[in-house]
Amino acid sequence: MSTYNTAFTSDNIAGVSPQVLEAMARCNVGQADPYGRDACTMQAEKMLSDVFEKDARVFFVTTGTAANCLSLSALTPPWGAVLCHHEGHINHDECGAPEFFNSGARVLTLDGANSKIDPEALKWGVKHRVGDIHSSQPAAVSLTQATESGSVYSLDELCMLGAITKNHGLRMHMDGARFANALVTLNCSPAEMTWKCGVDIVSFGATKNGTMSSEAIVVFDKKIAQEMSFRIKRSGQLGSKMRFMAAQMLGYLENDLWLNNARQSNAMAELLKRGLEKIPQISVLGSPQTNIIFCKMPKDCADRLLAQGFSFYHGKWEKDVIRLVTSFATTEQDIQYFLSAVNQAVGYAEAV
Amino acid sequence: MSTYNTAFTSDNIAGVSPQVLEAMARCNVGQADPYGRDACTMQAEKMLSDVFEKDARVFFVTTGTAANCLSLSALTPPWGAVLCHHEGHINHDECGAPEFFNSGARVLTLDGANSKIDPEALKWGVKHRVGDIHSSQPAAVSLTQATESGSVYSLDELCMLGAITKNHGLRMHMDGARFANALVTLNCSPAEMTWKCGVDIVSFGATKNGTMSSEAIVVFDKKIAQEMSFRIKRSGQLGSKMRFMAAQMLGYLENDLWLNNARQSNAMAELLKRGLEKIPQISVLGSPQTNIIFCKMPKDCADRLLAQGFSFYHGKWEKDVIRLVTSFATTEQDIQYFLSAVNQAVGYAEAV
Amino acid sequence: MSTYNTAFTSDNIAGVSPQVLEAMARCNVGQADPYGRDACTMQAEKMLSDVFEKDARVFFVTTGTAANCLSLSALTPPWGAVLCHHEGHINHDECGAPEFFNSGARVLTLDGANSKIDPEALKWGVKHRVGDIHSSQPAAVSLTQATESGSVYSLDELCMLGAITKNHGLRMHMDGARFANALVTLNCSPAEMTWKCGVDIVSFGATKNGTMSSEAIVVFDKKIAQEMSFRIKRSGQLGSKMRFMAAQMLGYLENDLWLNNARQSNAMAELLKRGLEKIPQISVLGSPQTNIIFCKMPKDCADRLLAQGFSFYHGKWEKDVIRLVTSFATTEQDIQYFLSAVNQAVGYAEAV
Amino acid sequence: MSTYNTAFTSDNIAGVSPQVLEAMARCNVGQADPYGRDACTMQAEKMLSDVFEKDARVFFVTTGTAANCLSLSALTPPWGAVLCHHEGHINHDECGAPEFFNSGARVLTLDGANSKIDPEALKWGVKHRVGDIHSSQPAAVSLTQATESGSVYSLDELCMLGAITKNHGLRMHMDGARFANALVTLNCSPAEMTWKCGVDIVSFGATKNGTMSSEAIVVFDKKIAQEMSFRIKRSGQLGSKMRFMAAQMLGYLENDLWLNNARQSNAMAELLKRGLEKIPQISVLGSPQTNIIFCKMPKDCADRLLAQGFSFYHGKWEKDVIRLVTSFATTEQDIQYFLSAVNQAVGYAEAV
Repeated sequence: MSTYNTAFTSDNIAGVSPQVLEAMARCNVGQADPYGRDACTMQAEKMLSDVFEKDARVFFVTTGTAANCLSLSALTPPWGAVLCHHEGHINHDECGAPEFFNSGARVLTLDGANSKIDPEALKWGVKHRVGDIHSSQPAAVSLTQATESGSVYSLDELCMLGAITKNHGLRMHMDGARFANALVTLNCSPAEMTWKCGVDIVSFGATKNGTMSSEAIVVFDKKIAQEMSFRIKRSGQLGSKMRFMAAQMLGYLENDLWLNNARQSNAMAELLKRGLEKIPQISVLGSPQTNIIFCKMPKDCADRLLAQGFSFYHGKWEKDVIRLVTSFATTEQDIQYFLSAVNQAVGYAEAV
Repeated sequence: MSTYNTAFTSDNIAGVSPQVLEAMARCNVGQADPYGRDACTMQAEKMLSDVFEKDARVFFVTTGTAANCLSLSALTPPWGAVLCHHEGHINHDECGAPEFFNSGARVLTLDGANSKIDPEALKWGVKHRVGDIHSSQPAAVSLTQATESGSVYSLDELCMLGAITKNHGLRMHMDGARFANALVTLNCSPAEMTWKCGVDIVSFGATKNGTMSSEAIVVFDKKIAQEMSFRIKRSGQLGSKMRFMAAQMLGYLENDLWLNNARQSNAMAELLKRGLEKIPQISVLGSPQTNIIFCKMPKDCADRLLAQGFSFYHGKWEKDVIRLVTSFATTEQDIQYFLSAVNQAVGYAEAV
Repeated sequence: MSTYNTAFTSDNIAGVSPQVLEAMARCNVGQADPYGRDACTMQAEKMLSDVFEKDARVFFVTTGTAANCLSLSALTPPWGAVLCHHEGHINHDECGAPEFFNSGARVLTLDGANSKIDPEALKWGVKHRVGDIHSSQPAAVSLTQATESGSVYSLDELCMLGAITKNHGLRMHMDGARFANALVTLNCSPAEMTWKCGVDIVSFGATKNGTMSSEAIVVFDKKIAQEMSFRIKRSGQLGSKMRFMAAQMLGYLENDLWLNNARQSNAMAELLKRGLEKIPQISVLGSPQTNIIFCKMPKDCADRLLAQGFSFYHGKWEKDVIRLVTSFATTEQDIQYFLSAVNQAVGYAEAV
Repeated sequence: MSTYNTAFTSDNIAGVSPQVLEAMARCNVGQADPYGRDACTMQAEKMLSDVFEKDARVFFVTTGTAANCLSLSALTPPWGAVLCHHEGHINHDECGAPEFFNSGARVLTLDGANSKIDPEALKWGVKHRVGDIHSSQPAAVSLTQATESGSVYSLDELCMLGAITKNHGLRMHMDGARFANALVTLNCSPAEMTWKCGVDIVSFGATKNGTMSSEAIVVFDKKIAQEMSFRIKRSGQLGSKMRFMAAQMLGYLENDLWLNNARQSNAMAELLKRGLEKIPQISVLGSPQTNIIFCKMPKDCADRLLAQGFSFYHGKWEKDVIRLVTSFATTEQDIQYFLSAVNQAVGYAEAV
């Protein structure tokens, strides 16, 4: 079974794109200034500015947690509140990191269908107890694009949320752990998906989509950028041999690797979705737009697949709901192999 | 001039040992569990336990700042004080990171010759205002081995400091950013240099000596280890594709690469020192034991070298003092080339 | 109108019991050691130990926020979660103070009728993602007694919640901002309502019930007490002239002032409730047991009362819901005067 | 012996001026809005604005620690450094409170004779590693007036330090725990001693000089004031019955009580100093200008006084140095009684 990718737990279980490793090897020549003052880092920063069509300041950090929390700490005072969807990663899966990085600022959660913040909910949130000293003050909005359930905010949706945010004097962050997956779905430019809608700062994720450990904080507001250097240093995120983090990003951006990887990942999810939809006992939930699929599958069937060595998350949501995630490394063969196993398992379960 | 390494500013300007890159490429196969639950991470942890002859818990982080501050936060309550030499990196060069990671615990500095904490100073420090609620309470001692000026604590010195620390109920941390350089100088075992002297936790540095961005927190006390996972997560240091951080460490430890790299680095410093000692206008300061040399050099001479493209830190200490640092990547040719330039510069300066 | 207390916004708008002022004046004699090392503070600590029938350590602080947050910081690590009812004051009205005092620990909210944590909800909460490094870890439970809506946990309820808490290794805090009001309702001993049910630490509120600014942190676990002194100092809560904070508490406890004050406050709420229940257009909500009453009142009626100079909170909850709070300073005349105004307002509203 | 004040350990061992207690009793009438929205608080704020000849925002807190740390947190980012004299209270006696309140900002200590920051030292400090991301950045200067050793900055000195501070873009804080004592020594206006010299924010101490627990944060910069409310709330310093804190300040300021108290305190120290200077075996150190005197006294003599029941700090400084502090409650009789005991003790010690 080892010739196939049989795990669909997350996109962070894939390895690294060969082009990324090559870029790292390529920059391993001679001496280079540390802490981001080297040519490679400057080149990567320039490349991201080009990608975003904006003279941005860029900071490379090693995890999405750091990218998100450092970004938010630049937008929120300690008595501030960060508004996000209740399924947001910063609300659920950071073990208090946002509170730690920002000296106690709180997360205020909002509702909305398909894991996306509802504009009406946001209108309530941005005004929530403003001026009341007994309550944390709305300071920033954090959107996850693509969302934790694989859906994508349309440009119209982003711009509407951006307008509400800005009209009330709040700042806007985009958690782009799966930025590329959303981008190829929308088929728009990075500029359109970010600062043109009001986004002040982006956690530009790359690790899940082909690099090793390189996330970029892309800052469109120069005033924020000035203090970000100090925030990064004091949080232990200032890598000395920064050139290798930058090199990962170079390999990721060159020759559209990032877009091609995301297209592959999304396409495999689409293939998987279409295959699952053909199986009457299984129902795909919501309308997945990127590389994450939630579906309902009879327990017997899921158990059999797990017993066979396939892996995916289950038992964390409503009854019989499982989550399947593809990545840039997923192949058509992987999908066919899995679908065939699902068909067998369903038949087997029925028979029993 | 590009064929030589002409910068002696720090050992973090070197690239990565080829064996480390190879180890990373080698582990880039198929899918692997994230966050350190993969085989590669377990193997690296096992390997470090073997190296330290102790069933240790190991955590991989990306910077020395993170390794030091996370270690100290496990030893010190928020109202505690960390005792270190006044030249200590945690005192001078962390932009408030120790205070951030530990909710406000303070650094209490001690004196001592050759950048090493004096036992008498430590005896004062461990008792400093103990029980006085108006003062931060001595909680942990942090020793840098090798020190910031290139000197090395002997095993006797370590054990004496360890005994004072333990007798007063404090915990002991070793900042091992240049652990290997000290180890080959002492020609002892890692166990002798750490837990056998009372060290509870080590920041086991690898980046300066051949890896890309992989530092290990080695914990000898299992109780500390339990909570360390949470500390790491909430500080944004839990890498998803941890296998590549572990792979760096494997490449570093295999075939004694780490020891050989440190020997090369130290040997080149020794060569440089002997060369400098032959020049009457230059005086080597202290008694360098690893890969850092401080010396006095006439300003004209230093200026000429800098103008020629050599680089090193100067003007940060007493008049005319410069610092020269070698690394595993420094070659005999680099040293000869530099020494010959120094001789010329001295002659030139005399002539003028 | 000035001869009546016409505001029912909160019990913190009352002044101070004369006996408390007298106790302060009484201790204003000669010199006294600062920071709680004086005779008056020791006497107050002793008196509270007697009240609780337990050799407790006591710390006097000036606000309920400080009492609650300092208590919780002693029970919860920075990566911990404090479980409380979603209506809990620490969740709603502290502007991020719990997160600040505890370096980022989070609040995890639970449901339950009448503002009281449901045992089933607690059973879920104490196990919530235990051992999952991506999530804050359940560490402490905080119960408000009496609750924010005026209800009271029975001794059986307290003991059941205490058992669940302890069985899962968590610690237990009681937010006793209205401790006395609950106590006289239950007609039990302070010991029965606290440590006999598993409470480790109490915020023993006194300000709302007759003192000026004196809350006591009562610690039943000596190990917690040791570090509390340092927590208090570094949070700016160590008063130099502590004797006057202790004196307030002495005046409060002597001659059962605290119990009599609470009885008066509760009795006035009961009188008010009975009066309101007689008015068909008004419906009292829930089953108020102390000094807080929520009721539904026609908007016209409420507006008219407000226009007449009465004050109370409205518009913060469901349509037409208002909150009325009595205090130790509320008199029968105050209640009659208000009820008569309500009756008139209702009639007037009907007529219009 | 009980008829005399025999302790000279600190001015915080005195009780409260009767006028302050009276002011508190006076405001204990009827209901009042909580959290500082009452008439009494507004009046006290207005009165302080008048005192400072400036439309200031005022916040009442209960301790000097809180006043200092909240003030500094408004002037310093988490990666900032607060510059103060190495003898400064915030450096020595706050158990990490400044670091706690400001998320890890550090204290950078400066030298200077008589506990006063030397202008040359400040010129070095304000430029210390500015722009270097590895180091905390100079952000604020904190001056103690009167200093911890009883000396006083002259207006010229204050203005010179203020100019250096402002020229380098830093902010300025005055720790006025003994503000009144300094003021009457300089015989100048509060405005001259503060904002006219560049002070942005003052910890206006009152507790040591006659109140119970009321310190005022006086903010001259409105922008700082806006966020101060939230800082105060989240740090547990927002008193509900604020009127009583304000009342203390009213009693303190009315009829020049604060100035008269300070004059008494200083005069008693002067009397004490003159008496000590007449004793050949004793030498007064420095040039005390307020209510603190350091002197050298033979150990036998000091021991005898302590044995007789007098108290003062000793053994914390150089050999045989003791500290004597007077307060507003110290009388001429107290001083004469003590001096006579000293004379006896000296004679006795000589005889032995």
